[in-house]
Amino acid sequence: MQNGPVTPTLHTMTDVWEAYGKELEGVEDHIRKNLDSSVTLVNTVAAYILSSGGKRIRPLLLLLSARLCGDTSSDPQSLGSLVEFIHTATLLHDDVVDDADLRRGRQTARKVWSNQISILVGDYLYSHAMRQIVTFKNQAVNETLAEACSRMAEGEVLQLYHHGSIAMTEADYIRIVEHKTASLIATSCRIGAIIGRASEERQAALFRFGEYIGIAFQMADDTLDYTANGAQLGKTLGQDLREGKITIPLLHLLQQCPEPDRQMIKDRLETRTLSETDLQRIIALMQDYGSIAYAMDRARAYVAAATRSLALFDDSPAKRALVIVADYMVNRDR
Amino acid sequence: MQNGPVTPTLHTMTDVWEAYGKELEGVEDHIRKNLDSSVTLVNTVAAYILSSGGKRIRPLLLLLSARLCGDTSSDPQSLGSLVEFIHTATLLHDDVVDDADLRRGRQTARKVWSNQISILVGDYLYSHAMRQIVTFKNQAVNETLAEACSRMAEGEVLQLYHHGSIAMTEADYIRIVEHKTASLIATSCRIGAIIGRASEERQAALFRFGEYIGIAFQMADDTLDYTANGAQLGKTLGQDLREGKITIPLLHLLQQCPEPDRQMIKDRLETRTLSETDLQRIIALMQDYGSIAYAMDRARAYVAAATRSLALFDDSPAKRALVIVADYMVNRDR
Repeated sequence: MQNGPVTPTLHTMTDVWEAYGKELEGVEDHIRKNLDSSVTLVNTVAAYILSSGGKRIRPLLLLLSARLCGDTSSDPQSLGSLVEFIHTATLLHDDVVDDADLRRGRQTARKVWSNQISILVGDYLYSHAMRQIVTFKNQAVNETLAEACSRMAEGEVLQLYHHGSIAMTEADYIRIVEHKTASLIATSCRIGAIIGRASEERQAALFRFGEYIGIAFQMADDTLDYTANGAQLGKTLGQDLREGKITIPLLHLLQQCPEPDRQMIKDRLETRTLSETDLQRIIALMQDYGSIAYAMDRARAYVAAATRSLALFDDSPAKRALVIVADYMVNRDR
Repeated sequence: MQNGPVTPTLHTMTDVWEAYGKELEGVEDHIRKNLDSSVTLVNTVAAYILSSGGKRIRPLLLLLSARLCGDTSSDPQSLGSLVEFIHTATLLHDDVVDDADLRRGRQTARKVWSNQISILVGDYLYSHAMRQIVTFKNQAVNETLAEACSRMAEGEVLQLYHHGSIAMTEADYIRIVEHKTASLIATSCRIGAIIGRASEERQAALFRFGEYIGIAFQMADDTLDYTANGAQLGKTLGQDLREGKITIPLLHLLQQCPEPDRQMIKDRLETRTLSETDLQRIIALMQDYGSIAYAMDRARAYVAAATRSLALFDDSPAKRALVIVADYMVNRDR
């Protein structure tokens, strides 16, 4: 069992991946080991999406939080793999809900197999993960994880509810993001703290840390939908807008731009049509009115708040690593 | 708290509904109380499907099993309502997977709202139920329920895998039915036994009872797809065949009928086309070759096996009620 990084000098994400590489390999082992359905097709589909280049951010956060709180066991690797199963289940369902054809540059499972298979294998991954998790017999872990799952589903419903409606406010947007994205990230951090037997205060601090970086991540990700960096990462620019999804840069623009532009955007949202010219015009407006900068500033403010919520922990390699991960959440394009 | 039926003379399902009516009202109260999402649309959709005339068979079985094992608490009502939430979640997903327009004579949620909403509210109901269930802090309940959920998802995947393939055997069919239908019914019975602090032997007996009546129920339900009684219950005759779903009466017919008829059925399954003439021909063949009688005989044999597995329990109102419910599972059309 490795108790922490070999070198305490962590500066970049590459240093973090390297320092915790062995432990993350342990997570991968558990992911492979847990693909043990007696129904072959279930394993095939699950393995397809689980091997599609995800960064394992949630297992990493769970692991770092556990190490920060003094845990030295291999439980974080196993629990991290199960959180990743739950995350993967949500991806399978989200791709059906969003009619998505591509994820991380590959065909989505629903394109390779079908919507039906994606729904059912998602259900399987979620319930299989819960089944493994209850064997840890840790009441606090069970509760926080089940709560995160129901909040994620609520967040997705809220998002659908607001689809295409420009009556949506930034507060609505934050509420959606807190539910659909931040809750599982926050819970990953809290689980680390729970198995590290941290005080409720420290558990809450790590939960808040995760919640803030989760919000920051989603804000930055939503902004990439309108920038060249997003295109480099394999995103189809303007995809959110095409689907009627209103995110933080668009919310800012809708508040700042003149009425005719506002009407044009409203029309595109309602009709779900968006020509290349429309998109270029909207991106230009976002640059003019500072919407991209605004969204990224908001994201960075959440990262700063996240980092501050770690104040009650002494300096350590795990704490440094968490700060680096927080920064990485808004700078994935670098 | 009512400890059992007022009258010990139970003969029909009506007697059972009456004797346990107060307790089942308690289940309804819990169902209403648990619809407490902060997202209004979630409650609306969940209430729509939860109030669509389901028979609450799983809560009833959980309750009767608990009473049979001597439990007198109100826990079965609360746990029963949560099992019904999980069952409802699977219905929401199944209707999307099956492209179903009607359920119990009403429009499906996916028709009233959308596939997206049905997927996400299903996810919510499932995770919300798990969230409530873990608060009971009963390890055995957590484990059996999470196992049932992953088996249900596996069963649905298996069913899709075999869609339209006449290479499917009766053993394949039973395996699908055990997973997708019988596992949650069996687990409902086991949960009753667990909270009644029954021995492992009695828990296993009640689990087996539930498994057998679950299989019997699905066999009878699949047979109704080809009989006039099914039409009276609001079923669209031949719907399974139209979807490529091969069930026990069709499996029997495929084994018994001459090659030209077999080829005709194979063709209809592959092309997913079925004229009224085709359907009438297939139904007539099923009558001629005794496929309906065969399927119902198999279903009744499972009911008999279920009843036998209760042998280690002394006679009591709860035991009589369970035997009546078992019989009802294959005679819903009466």
